[in-house]
Amino acid sequence: MPHGRFVTLEGGEGAGKSTQIKRLAERLRAAGFGVVETREPGGAPGAEEIRNLLLGGGVERWDSVTEALLMYAARRDHLVRTVWPALDQGQWVLCDRFEDSTRAYQGAGSGLDRAVIDALGKVARGPFAPDMTLILDLPVAVGRARAAARRGANDRFEQRDDAFHERVRQGFLAIAAAEPKRCAVIDASRPLDEVAAAITQEVERRLGVALP
Amino acid sequence: MPHGRFVTLEGGEGAGKSTQIKRLAERLRAAGFGVVETREPGGAPGAEEIRNLLLGGGVERWDSVTEALLMYAARRDHLVRTVWPALDQGQWVLCDRFEDSTRAYQGAGSGLDRAVIDALGKVARGPFAPDMTLILDLPVAVGRARAAARRGANDRFEQRDDAFHERVRQGFLAIAAAEPKRCAVIDASRPLDEVAAAITQEVERRLGVALP
Repeated sequence: MPHGRFVTLEGGEGAGKSTQIKRLAERLRAAGFGVVETREPGGAPGAEEIRNLLLGGGVERWDSVTEALLMYAARRDHLVRTVWPALDQGQWVLCDRFEDSTRAYQGAGSGLDRAVIDALGKVARGPFAPDMTLILDLPVAVGRARAAARRGANDRFEQRDDAFHERVRQGFLAIAAAEPKRCAVIDASRPLDEVAAAITQEVERRLGVALP
Repeated sequence: MPHGRFVTLEGGEGAGKSTQIKRLAERLRAAGFGVVETREPGGAPGAEEIRNLLLGGGVERWDSVTEALLMYAARRDHLVRTVWPALDQGQWVLCDRFEDSTRAYQGAGSGLDRAVIDALGKVARGPFAPDMTLILDLPVAVGRARAAARRGANDRFEQRDDAFHERVRQGFLAIAAAEPKRCAVIDASRPLDEVAAAITQEVERRLGVALP
C-alpha cells in the first residue's frame, strides 16, 4: 500500500510559508506526485470552526491551557479527516504550521508547560510525526514588517509584542537543534526564488526524490 | 479567605438534574449561602461556544478523541472563568454535569481510553475535584421517556441507542462505587419532591450544613 509524505512548514509571521507551500506543491505535482496543501489550525471543516474560535476575540480570550486544548482538538480533527486519509492514498501533504508552532508559540512564546504540550500530543496524534519539517527563519522585525503589509494580518497572535515573537523564533531554532534529522532551517530573509530553491534542495536530499 | 463548595450533579438523560439543581440552589440561598448554578459543557461565554460545536451536527461529526479534547477545552474555560472565581468568593457552585459525564459518556459509553481522559483531566484541572457529586440514577427506559417528552431533547448524545445509555448508567454507578466518599447515588425514579429531599439530606450530612 502506498504511503505519502507529511511535510510541515513552520516559522514566524511573514516568513512566507504559504507562498513557499504553493511553490513546493507545484514542483511536486510537476514530478507526478499527488499533493494536498493544508494548514493548521484548521484544514478540515470542523477544525476550521475551531480555528475561528481560536483566532477571534482578544489576546486574553482563552487562558493558555484552554488555547492548547482547542489547538489539539483542531489538530486531531485535521489529522483524522484530512492528513491521514491523504497519506493512506499515497499523497504528499504539505502543512502550513503543525505541532512545532504549538511548542514555539504556546510553549516558548507564552510559557505553557512543556509537559502539557507533550501530554496533548500523545492524546491527539500518538507517535505520528512529520517526515520532514522546514523551519523558515528570519529576523522578527523583517517578518513583522512583511506581515503588517499583508491584508488581514492582525489576528490574536500577531497582536503580541516583539519580545514574544523573539521567544517564538528562538523556540523554533531550539526545536531544529534538538531534532536535526526531521528539521531543516531555511534562511527566509532571502528573495522568494532563493528560498524556494533551498527548500527544493532540502526536500530532494532528505526525502530522496528528484524534482523538475 | 472563604472558599465555597463545588457540587456536581451527574446522571443520564431525564434524570432531572437541572430541576434538582434549582431546588438545591433555593434551599442553599434560603440558608444564606451565595450560589452559582452552572452546567457543562458550557457555563462561560467561550465554553458555551465550544458547547455549540460539540452538540451540533451528526453523531459522527467528531471522532472520540477530538470530542474529548473539545470537552476539556470547554471544561478548562468554565473552571477559569466561572467556577474558580466563584469558589474564591466563598460561593457554592452547583454544576449540571462535570468530569464524571466524560467518563460515563465518552469512556464507558463510547469506549474512549481511560488513559486519554486521565491525561486530559490532569492538563485541564490538575488536582481540582468536586467536594461532592450527586449521581441521579434511574432506569434508561424511564429516563429516555422523560427526555423525549422534553422539548429540544434530540441532541447528539440523545440520538444514541439504549445499549449506549445502559453503558453510561453503569459507568456512573462504577464511579460511585470507586469513590463513595465523593459520590452519593440518588434514586431519581421517585417523585421530584422525594428526590429533592434525598439530595438535601446527603448535602447536609456530607458537607456539614443545615438547610431550612
